[in-house]
Amino acid sequence: MTQDLQLDHNGRLKHFLTIEGLSRRTILEILDTAKSFISVGEREIKKVPLLRGKTIVNLFFESSTRTRTTFEIAAKRLSADVINLNIATSSTAKGETLLDTVRNLEAMHTDLFVVRHKRSGAAHMIAAHVPAHVHIINAGDGSHAHPTQAMLDVFTIREHKGAFEKLKVAIVGDIQHSRVARSQIHALKTLGVAEIRAIAPRTLMPIAVERLGVMPFTDMREGLDSVDVVLMLRLQTERMTGALIPSEQEYFNLYGLTPAKLACAKKDAIVMHPGPMNRGLEIDSAVADGPQSVILPQVTNGIAVRMAIMALILGGSPAESRARRAADA
Amino acid sequence: MTQDLQLDHNGRLKHFLTIEGLSRRTILEILDTAKSFISVGEREIKKVPLLRGKTIVNLFFESSTRTRTTFEIAAKRLSADVINLNIATSSTAKGETLLDTVRNLEAMHTDLFVVRHKRSGAAHMIAAHVPAHVHIINAGDGSHAHPTQAMLDVFTIREHKGAFEKLKVAIVGDIQHSRVARSQIHALKTLGVAEIRAIAPRTLMPIAVERLGVMPFTDMREGLDSVDVVLMLRLQTERMTGALIPSEQEYFNLYGLTPAKLACAKKDAIVMHPGPMNRGLEIDSAVADGPQSVILPQVTNGIAVRMAIMALILGGSPAESRARRAADA
Amino acid sequence: MTQDLQLDHNGRLKHFLTIEGLSRRTILEILDTAKSFISVGEREIKKVPLLRGKTIVNLFFESSTRTRTTFEIAAKRLSADVINLNIATSSTAKGETLLDTVRNLEAMHTDLFVVRHKRSGAAHMIAAHVPAHVHIINAGDGSHAHPTQAMLDVFTIREHKGAFEKLKVAIVGDIQHSRVARSQIHALKTLGVAEIRAIAPRTLMPIAVERLGVMPFTDMREGLDSVDVVLMLRLQTERMTGALIPSEQEYFNLYGLTPAKLACAKKDAIVMHPGPMNRGLEIDSAVADGPQSVILPQVTNGIAVRMAIMALILGGSPAESRARRAADA
Repeated sequence: MTQDLQLDHNGRLKHFLTIEGLSRRTILEILDTAKSFISVGEREIKKVPLLRGKTIVNLFFESSTRTRTTFEIAAKRLSADVINLNIATSSTAKGETLLDTVRNLEAMHTDLFVVRHKRSGAAHMIAAHVPAHVHIINAGDGSHAHPTQAMLDVFTIREHKGAFEKLKVAIVGDIQHSRVARSQIHALKTLGVAEIRAIAPRTLMPIAVERLGVMPFTDMREGLDSVDVVLMLRLQTERMTGALIPSEQEYFNLYGLTPAKLACAKKDAIVMHPGPMNRGLEIDSAVADGPQSVILPQVTNGIAVRMAIMALILGGSPAESRARRAADA
Repeated sequence: MTQDLQLDHNGRLKHFLTIEGLSRRTILEILDTAKSFISVGEREIKKVPLLRGKTIVNLFFESSTRTRTTFEIAAKRLSADVINLNIATSSTAKGETLLDTVRNLEAMHTDLFVVRHKRSGAAHMIAAHVPAHVHIINAGDGSHAHPTQAMLDVFTIREHKGAFEKLKVAIVGDIQHSRVARSQIHALKTLGVAEIRAIAPRTLMPIAVERLGVMPFTDMREGLDSVDVVLMLRLQTERMTGALIPSEQEYFNLYGLTPAKLACAKKDAIVMHPGPMNRGLEIDSAVADGPQSVILPQVTNGIAVRMAIMALILGGSPAESRARRAADA
Repeated sequence: MTQDLQLDHNGRLKHFLTIEGLSRRTILEILDTAKSFISVGEREIKKVPLLRGKTIVNLFFESSTRTRTTFEIAAKRLSADVINLNIATSSTAKGETLLDTVRNLEAMHTDLFVVRHKRSGAAHMIAAHVPAHVHIINAGDGSHAHPTQAMLDVFTIREHKGAFEKLKVAIVGDIQHSRVARSQIHALKTLGVAEIRAIAPRTLMPIAVERLGVMPFTDMREGLDSVDVVLMLRLQTERMTGALIPSEQEYFNLYGLTPAKLACAKKDAIVMHPGPMNRGLEIDSAVADGPQSVILPQVTNGIAVRMAIMALILGGSPAESRARRAADA
């Protein structure tokens, strides 16, 4: 069970692999801890000594400069030592198994692996095999999950919209292949969002998405009608094989978020995107840079959310952490 | 205007993009600050806490291990956290625009970008779009400018030759395509050097170089006659398309700096080169390793000069900086 | 002479290039110092301030994520600043010589280079040309030496077997091309091991290996008979040109370490491997993960051994080092 893998006997976070199975209480604890880290990024000296002497390894089997950078900055602001490993061209190429690579690193007394892998389940598999003092954060595994992205998304929603229970949220784009969408749906459901909608062409809509408690729409204007939050997905053109979309121009016409389509949502709806954006494909620049966009605040919040998850996993209980942070301030 | 971009309303350095337009006072302030950092590299503990808690990003769109290393060492000696981003194979390859990449990084509360880019004007363009708390240092943009290199060159000249006003300086090589030469000419002119000469074959000499206040020479012995300083340029054979030079052997015969040609300069003339050197192409090993060479001191000075620029931009006024450094010593 | 290169006039370690020529006293001093560092990896805060303000450069001309990581972690636990340089695609590609690259780095006031190079003798050559304040550790040069690997091997043997004088040790695999084997033989001989055996097919056995004081065996069961320690080597299939081994299956049958073959050794014999392992080629998983394997303790010990070597070279005498560490604890 994933839940057992993520929490220890006292219900404290051991690994952070997926939103699925996490309680509302745990999710809110992460959001509250992240809130307390927001101010660190705004200080003159952007550093707290919480994780001094800890060794955090960015273990990226799939390269992602942006995601790696957010974890590296978060770890350094907590005063941890960071080791970057881009494994695409490394030992695994020499015939070593994934678990041998991991066991070697843990034998070096490392404390936390941030794992990105193109295979779904890789972070879970590693978490199932490490000893108790080693912790895993999933930074994206195949088309399965990207839970820190979903956490920063719900953090951003709460900052701008407050209580989740009254909100209508639409997710737009390639829902079928998106690990981001999958994690967002789990987070939004657990937090009790009133209505979750999925907007996509039929080819990119998961079969039986309704069973997840999500309302499917193929017409974007209908789907956006009176929503509070629009979560755009990146169209991963580099991964698309075959004719899943008719043409980029036609996709933009039907599913690109323009000011005209956004007008269907509530007047004060916010627009989010996990980046990197394909401007003119899934989102119009007038929206991306417009007054309803909270795309850059998402990035800022992402640092605080990743600091919070690292601190909760490695830094003792939130109460202890707060005490240590307070002592430092 | 570049000058407005580089200085704030109080005339303090905000960005460091180009030598062009900088006042003699600002250049001398940088040189004096660098002088005070020279001793840090010679201490037992080569570190000052001036930029603790600051996040500096090496944003290299064109890879350069050497230049990146000098900035990384300079930043770490100031106790900053450093993030290395080699963007050649990263998000921009996923279709993200340069400005979106930069906006994302600044949303992470980073403080300073050290930018290298193969397009002229890239660092300026970024500086024109970042908010007030984000700062840019140009680490080389296309064939336009490499201002930190020019600063370490004039620092080195001052260390060895004292007052600039009486000096004759020759720049030798591919002046036409060299961002180093362009920055050197601006720095030397602003500092009031008596005579600046450009020595190059016609194909590598800029048209109307005289308008910059530079005397052109195609004959190397004539050009070197009684100069105090010889600034060699690297022949960028990897960038040369077409027949700009007849052959490497012939280039060496005509423009390679040998002991015989150097004998035309003053007896105590110094020889400089920005590295990496093509020994036997633009410079003879007998000169590169000879008593008049200050090529390795240039490298040492480069760390102090980059520390100075970072400290002036990020570390408060020079007076404050000196106070904080003194408190630490 | 290598010995002169490695030790200063007071017999203190200046560089660490090869085991050959090191005295038993020096080797034991390194092992004892490493022993005192083992506890650092087990602390809550895994850091000592011994090398604060020192700059250590990982100068890797041949990429090796694993080895680079062990040195990076060791250096950071000693509080040094670490610069990673992967030179494969860098300045040397721009025509710069190896020594010019090194001279540039030392001009930046760096303190220690950890050098990996595919040419035998590269680390020695560099050590012969640096000034007195710059130090070199050989992290593997061609087929010549890998002395830190051999040091962690003998450290691990001592931890598990105590006194060296009574031990029989077998080295198994491609002895001919292995820098690891060469360094192990020198270390074991100097430490006075009773019997050193080499087990390999004729094509992978060095000519006249007996002159090194090593007993050659082509039959693995005979070679393993009643040994205390089995040192497996990695079969570097990616480097093998030509028909040095008949086939991988046949190699495994004859020289792969299986439980059946291991039964020929003493009941409490330990099994070691430098990694990365080719499971099912030179070693069976039942042995690699079995009760006699100390392969993961080797990795843990490797951090302590590398910290010890760095500390001895850079951190003053062991007595001073111990005093400084004690003051910190």
